Amino acid sequence: MRTTIHLIGIGTGNPEHLTLQGIRALNAADVVFALDKGEAKSGLNAVRRTICERYRERPGLRFVEAPDPERDRRPDDYGVAVDDWHAARAGLYEDLIATHLGEGEQGAFLVWGDPALYDSTLRILDRVRARGRLDFDVSVVPGITSVQALAAGHRIPLHRIGEPVRITTGRRLREAGGIDGATVVMLDGDPRFEGLAPDLAIYWGAYLGTPDELLLSGRLGDVADEIRRLRREARARHGWIMDIYLLMPPEA
Amino acid sequence: MRTTIHLIGIGTGNPEHLTLQGIRALNAADVVFALDKGEAKSGLNAVRRTICERYRERPGLRFVEAPDPERDRRPDDYGVAVDDWHAARAGLYEDLIATHLGEGEQGAFLVWGDPALYDSTLRILDRVRARGRLDFDVSVVPGITSVQALAAGHRIPLHRIGEPVRITTGRRLREAGGIDGATVVMLDGDPRFEGLAPDLAIYWGAYLGTPDELLLSGRLGDVADEIRRLRREARARHGWIMDIYLLMPPEA
Repeated sequence: MRTTIHLIGIGTGNPEHLTLQGIRALNAADVVFALDKGEAKSGLNAVRRTICERYRERPGLRFVEAPDPERDRRPDDYGVAVDDWHAARAGLYEDLIATHLGEGEQGAFLVWGDPALYDSTLRILDRVRARGRLDFDVSVVPGITSVQALAAGHRIPLHRIGEPVRITTGRRLREAGGIDGATVVMLDGDPRFEGLAPDLAIYWGAYLGTPDELLLSGRLGDVADEIRRLRREARARHGWIMDIYLLMPPEA
Repeated sequence: MRTTIHLIGIGTGNPEHLTLQGIRALNAADVVFALDKGEAKSGLNAVRRTICERYRERPGLRFVEAPDPERDRRPDDYGVAVDDWHAARAGLYEDLIATHLGEGEQGAFLVWGDPALYDSTLRILDRVRARGRLDFDVSVVPGITSVQALAAGHRIPLHRIGEPVRITTGRRLREAGGIDGATVVMLDGDPRFEGLAPDLAIYWGAYLGTPDELLLSGRLGDVADEIRRLRREARARHGWIMDIYLLMPPEA
């Protein structure tokens, strides 16, 4: 049997976001690799441990934790910084896999959300294989994203009937200077909503799927300040925040 | 206890796409409403039945099947046709709920993919409530979408590093006449790829998550004919097809 690494999407913080396919992969694994991206404070690795304890049905799982390399959060050149960071992580992942995963064994990464959306594990593992020292198969198990948890929390579709929806980042939204149809904004560390029409509808959520979930929606011009106040308070209270929002043009 | 209706996303055909949250909602339900949208031939309702049989842990579930109103598939005015169709379905759903769900009971719709993405159940239930005859709470359980099953099948992210991705329909793609960044195209009954640059990368998938899954990727100019041939043959063999594709601009 070939060495296989499962990328298991685990959802956004509710352990019950896990799929049955995810449980199957978790139970096939010999090793779970947990990279701490400064997530200790956020409880993300605690959720990973809860998932392993609750849904692992046979003994013998090795839980390998390691600190993730620091990332330059305010680089002069975003692309170069990400590339450096990925290169550093490929070296680390290669060492972890070589050290902890025997020939023919199965490893797993429990990925926040879904491995296909704003997560770098897939790209890093491609780099590890490209380095040529290790050979393994990759298997991807989709998981519930914060985009979906946001829509579920607000009980809304992500788009108007038959229309598109774009998923983007806070950085790209600022560069674009506005939206073109329904737009979900992820990874916006400091939402200022600058240059956006006040008549847009906004659906905002934080800590989605967890007992701390916060939801607020309304006309952007009416609720923008309240969202900024809420997220400032919540961040101070928890020591961290993960949030997301959907912007929707007014009905024609 | 208030009457509650759960919209449970069940994924794309692999019963193991179901989440633990979905199983919990299924087990809370007294009635599952299965609307046959001509899905009999596609086996979609068979997957719903499999899910109920396999993951329902207590007896007493009522399974209510009804034919969904016909939809005008080639209307002169798309918006009006959809509106008429939603109105007809609101009447039907109201009758089904009034007839089969007692005061304080819980109902469930098992929704293909995720209730937030190109599914009308949420909008229909909003209409039912707006009619004023029935009052109930709605709860949404996110599910794995074909977008995610496509990315998992190809083991790829949906976007380049830090860039956006758009999810759209075949109809909207034809209207737009091209793409602006990574674009997932759903509901394209006859993909001709007209007006698209041959240097785009395409990742195509059909029957995602099922034993019949088909995957093909490559440079659009090289594989477009092969995708059209594959989907024609598969549709003839199965009597139906559900497919989806991701278009990705070449690396800069």
